[in-house]
Amino acid sequence: MLIVMSSQATAEQVEHVSKIIREMGLTPHSLPGATRTAIGITGNISAIDPEGLACLPGVKELLRVTKPYKLASREMHLDDTIVALPMAQIGGREFTMIAGPCSVESEELVLKVADYLISRRVKLMRAGAFKPRTSPYAFQGMEHEGLRILEKAREKTGIGIVTEVMESAHADAVEQAADVLQVGARNMQNYSLLKRLGKAKKPVLLKRGMSATLEEWLMAAEYILAGGNKQVILCERGVRTFADHTRNTLDLSIVPCVKEVSHLPVLVDPSHGTGKRKYVAPMALAGLAAGADGLLIEVHPDPDRALSDGAQTLSFTQFDALLEKTKMLASVMLG
Amino acid sequence: MLIVMSSQATAEQVEHVSKIIREMGLTPHSLPGATRTAIGITGNISAIDPEGLACLPGVKELLRVTKPYKLASREMHLDDTIVALPMAQIGGREFTMIAGPCSVESEELVLKVADYLISRRVKLMRAGAFKPRTSPYAFQGMEHEGLRILEKAREKTGIGIVTEVMESAHADAVEQAADVLQVGARNMQNYSLLKRLGKAKKPVLLKRGMSATLEEWLMAAEYILAGGNKQVILCERGVRTFADHTRNTLDLSIVPCVKEVSHLPVLVDPSHGTGKRKYVAPMALAGLAAGADGLLIEVHPDPDRALSDGAQTLSFTQFDALLEKTKMLASVMLG
Amino acid sequence: MLIVMSSQATAEQVEHVSKIIREMGLTPHSLPGATRTAIGITGNISAIDPEGLACLPGVKELLRVTKPYKLASREMHLDDTIVALPMAQIGGREFTMIAGPCSVESEELVLKVADYLISRRVKLMRAGAFKPRTSPYAFQGMEHEGLRILEKAREKTGIGIVTEVMESAHADAVEQAADVLQVGARNMQNYSLLKRLGKAKKPVLLKRGMSATLEEWLMAAEYILAGGNKQVILCERGVRTFADHTRNTLDLSIVPCVKEVSHLPVLVDPSHGTGKRKYVAPMALAGLAAGADGLLIEVHPDPDRALSDGAQTLSFTQFDALLEKTKMLASVMLG
Amino acid sequence: MLIVMSSQATAEQVEHVSKIIREMGLTPHSLPGATRTAIGITGNISAIDPEGLACLPGVKELLRVTKPYKLASREMHLDDTIVALPMAQIGGREFTMIAGPCSVESEELVLKVADYLISRRVKLMRAGAFKPRTSPYAFQGMEHEGLRILEKAREKTGIGIVTEVMESAHADAVEQAADVLQVGARNMQNYSLLKRLGKAKKPVLLKRGMSATLEEWLMAAEYILAGGNKQVILCERGVRTFADHTRNTLDLSIVPCVKEVSHLPVLVDPSHGTGKRKYVAPMALAGLAAGADGLLIEVHPDPDRALSDGAQTLSFTQFDALLEKTKMLASVMLG
Repeated sequence: MLIVMSSQATAEQVEHVSKIIREMGLTPHSLPGATRTAIGITGNISAIDPEGLACLPGVKELLRVTKPYKLASREMHLDDTIVALPMAQIGGREFTMIAGPCSVESEELVLKVADYLISRRVKLMRAGAFKPRTSPYAFQGMEHEGLRILEKAREKTGIGIVTEVMESAHADAVEQAADVLQVGARNMQNYSLLKRLGKAKKPVLLKRGMSATLEEWLMAAEYILAGGNKQVILCERGVRTFADHTRNTLDLSIVPCVKEVSHLPVLVDPSHGTGKRKYVAPMALAGLAAGADGLLIEVHPDPDRALSDGAQTLSFTQFDALLEKTKMLASVMLG
Repeated sequence: MLIVMSSQATAEQVEHVSKIIREMGLTPHSLPGATRTAIGITGNISAIDPEGLACLPGVKELLRVTKPYKLASREMHLDDTIVALPMAQIGGREFTMIAGPCSVESEELVLKVADYLISRRVKLMRAGAFKPRTSPYAFQGMEHEGLRILEKAREKTGIGIVTEVMESAHADAVEQAADVLQVGARNMQNYSLLKRLGKAKKPVLLKRGMSATLEEWLMAAEYILAGGNKQVILCERGVRTFADHTRNTLDLSIVPCVKEVSHLPVLVDPSHGTGKRKYVAPMALAGLAAGADGLLIEVHPDPDRALSDGAQTLSFTQFDALLEKTKMLASVMLG
Repeated sequence: MLIVMSSQATAEQVEHVSKIIREMGLTPHSLPGATRTAIGITGNISAIDPEGLACLPGVKELLRVTKPYKLASREMHLDDTIVALPMAQIGGREFTMIAGPCSVESEELVLKVADYLISRRVKLMRAGAFKPRTSPYAFQGMEHEGLRILEKAREKTGIGIVTEVMESAHADAVEQAADVLQVGARNMQNYSLLKRLGKAKKPVLLKRGMSATLEEWLMAAEYILAGGNKQVILCERGVRTFADHTRNTLDLSIVPCVKEVSHLPVLVDPSHGTGKRKYVAPMALAGLAAGADGLLIEVHPDPDRALSDGAQTLSFTQFDALLEKTKMLASVMLG
Repeated sequence: MLIVMSSQATAEQVEHVSKIIREMGLTPHSLPGATRTAIGITGNISAIDPEGLACLPGVKELLRVTKPYKLASREMHLDDTIVALPMAQIGGREFTMIAGPCSVESEELVLKVADYLISRRVKLMRAGAFKPRTSPYAFQGMEHEGLRILEKAREKTGIGIVTEVMESAHADAVEQAADVLQVGARNMQNYSLLKRLGKAKKPVLLKRGMSATLEEWLMAAEYILAGGNKQVILCERGVRTFADHTRNTLDLSIVPCVKEVSHLPVLVDPSHGTGKRKYVAPMALAGLAAGADGLLIEVHPDPDRALSDGAQTLSFTQFDALLEKTKMLASVMLG
């Protein structure tokens, strides 16, 4: 932490700031310059809230030098985290495809998709039993019955299940049914839920919030890691910007950034990222080329009649074509 | 809903789209134009998810004509909603000030602030017992003990309590302690929580999410209204943009927009909206001038030593000056 | 400028960075900390481009301590700049209204509006002769003939003229016709134009670019100031964000920020800022309450038939009502 | 164009709107619905400004059905535009690399880079003689002398030159020296410049503005196309968002969108798009995978000592590695 004093600050003001810093149990280091003084702070800054210092008389600005995340940081954990599941792994030098319908619509649908995916050697299926919907009047998911359908699909086909958990009260049930617990973008800063998932025995797939900075995203991961659950997978799914040609703006450049500052694996979801079927395949390939550890893709046997997210969902034929291209690209990228 | 066909669309494609619309139980109306055909849709669109239509062959675009919110809409409810509390009202031709510390730090602090506010005829106090914090290592609030302190403050001074509820599991306890239940920006689309608050007996103050459109905000309110709780108060607290001179960008123009399309009262929170103490007063006055029904202001006897949000918190002296200006301005605006 | 080294940086890397800094003619100051070293830099940083330092081995981050603007900064110029025109002043403890049609449509229109404004004691009229239009097929303005009409209006009524200059080639002509030269949002970083206006003898009204930070805006002003023209007026007109309830998002909190860091006067344009007639009056009042030195308002005798921007333009009756409220508010704010 | 009336609109209001539409020389089509009436408009809408209709009594909203761009639209021009240069082509099933230093720093530098690029079979070199710089105190480019250096490099090595033109006054000189005229992001809506380039005999590379929507970008291209110059190349270089982990947010999903709605070739500039050297290579590959027709890459023999943009510039060694990967990827994507 560095405090930049105004060029008009008096010596008394510099001393007053230093005094407050010492009261906080930290150490101030005065750095006089040509036109102004700066004050470096050392000590355990993360335990206190130093923002108030910005308002002391004579202070111009507060500059943070260290990042607030620790367990999520590569500086503290040099090697890549690899999430190992019974049927697949996420992270490391492997590229993992996760696909499936937006929501569990029926047992028939889920089994059909699971069979299809297994036949394509896709080992993880995504499908929502609990659905966060913008409208209270829209289909809200099959909920607990949906979870039972997902469990049956796993038993029958061996496919791994990735499904969303929306509140702590459902966490036990979802944890039992799923191989990976998904946290949706709208819940990225639902801290009660994150704390509960820090106690979960299953890996957590944490989607980036619609307006989350990289730091806020890693701090959300930090909540789970600090609770004791080291199996966190990040997933970029587009952010909210002024651009209106896609539903969200898929921010692929966060992929190499995550790789640089963190050890956690990172996936890309081009279905939510674009909201339009035509753009899913090019952006899936772009995500892979940017260095993502895998993809989350919405696929449905009859997307035009899907109960939710039909506009961004691929048919089996379209998914087959994407899968083919993905493999060729992965062999170039990872080979 | 209007479907715009491509200028190259064939008659068969137009007919196919119309057929799908009829299958959904809706009525298509073909509108041939000079260069392309459009298809109007009538019927109960809110019950289905028509987004998939955008992907049918020959379709260029989908245009929504009606808004998805009903109970929150002024078209359905012409008169302003007024939230009546024992000690104050929110909405109508009155301007309501809500002030207090960011968090319940101690009984002493809360009583001191409550006494101060009552002495200034401010009837509602804000203070958080449960705190959503970006860092898992930061002070997380006094939680249930904090609620007891707030109850004591109300008993002693008669001040009304506005405090945050972060999860359904705490809703009973917060409902008992508070006069108004606050939903924070990060929980605006926590649908489990919104559904629970639709059953609450106390009014809900719903902050706008950091990247929420007006429509999404009103749809969040719609969740609460649809649950049966008609006492919803909106609160603008700044949104996430590229601008870096303030912590968030306070979007005051949403105030007259809310007044136009909805009947719900709307407040402004310039403390979170700017994040900087110096800008709180001008933006508070601007919020009032824009037509807001009231303000939410962070105030603390010693802001530089506050446990959270000190940088955006006013001292008693600064708040006194603001209150004075507010009254003069309100007499011009409402007089 | 502060360079933050990685916690894994070696002593050799720290020394290498210091060497490069010395090669640039600057002085490095090593600041060892508990987990990492930081290097402060002093000297004339503005003359060089230190961004490349961020890529040296072992460097984690570059933090700027001083702002790059000098002449626009309040630190260098403590007193408010007041722009004095023959018929009015902008800045100081006065509130200045500028109003008029979006574009010069005809001599008849311009004279009608000028007469009207003078009858309301509004001393400055805005109207575009050169119009920046998104579409090449839209009305592009009356250009040089428009300038002659504006000159005639000034001669006849004494009203001051604020009109846009879009390129250096027109600057002489506009400078002759206008009392204030307006630079539109799209040209805020048209550096060729800014350099030319640094040589102008008339004040420049510099609109904020659609995605300009405060710093970029002040750097654009710096171009004009550095050229020798000290008469710069800033004008907030809304920025581009995800919010879709208004055409742009009027960022009023930049008003107190400008007042803090700069000495230049700042106006608010709620017509472009909202794009909708209904919101112009509330946001105009909000701008005044936030501390703006004046307003820019689009007004037209028959807005529904205006050749451009009709949707955001007030009629004379609506403007009269706004003017009345503005005066009452100004007496509270400035009185 | 569709006008949506309020559900409370009277028959008189509907008739009044229709009357105004007829006065504009257009045809209204009344479409009564269950809760409200809509009015379709046919005729040559692009010649008028119908925004004012939004303010007529009883009107709720205006919905545009057709896009305002014509010459840039794929609906009007089904085949891909291919820009053919003497030494290379842009567009079609070819992937074109353009590389070079940010600015012309010296003849020695430019010749060194040109020789290097030619040795790698890169046929087009980018380098700025006129530089748009945020600060008036920063290096502004070698200007006309820089153009002469670029011409010499072309004579000596046969490399094609891509260089920026910042104002109409320089257009003749730049047109003589360059094979492709670049318009920077800050000038995307500099309409005076766009009109001049519509008369140019050389292709124009039009960068996307920092906050430009797809429609605004294509309308800027429309200015050039409407002037008679059909050789327009688009280039995505990142947009302004809240995200702070990169200098700009590279919006790769605009690549497949451009391909869908327009026939113009589109490139990606990951150097400006990310602002950080480490992310250039992954985002370059991602751009290619998303379907871009080529890349614009900043390369310099000694990036840490570059006069501008050093932080985002690759060394020859880094560029070699990227070039290798690019070729492998292109063979998968296009093969």
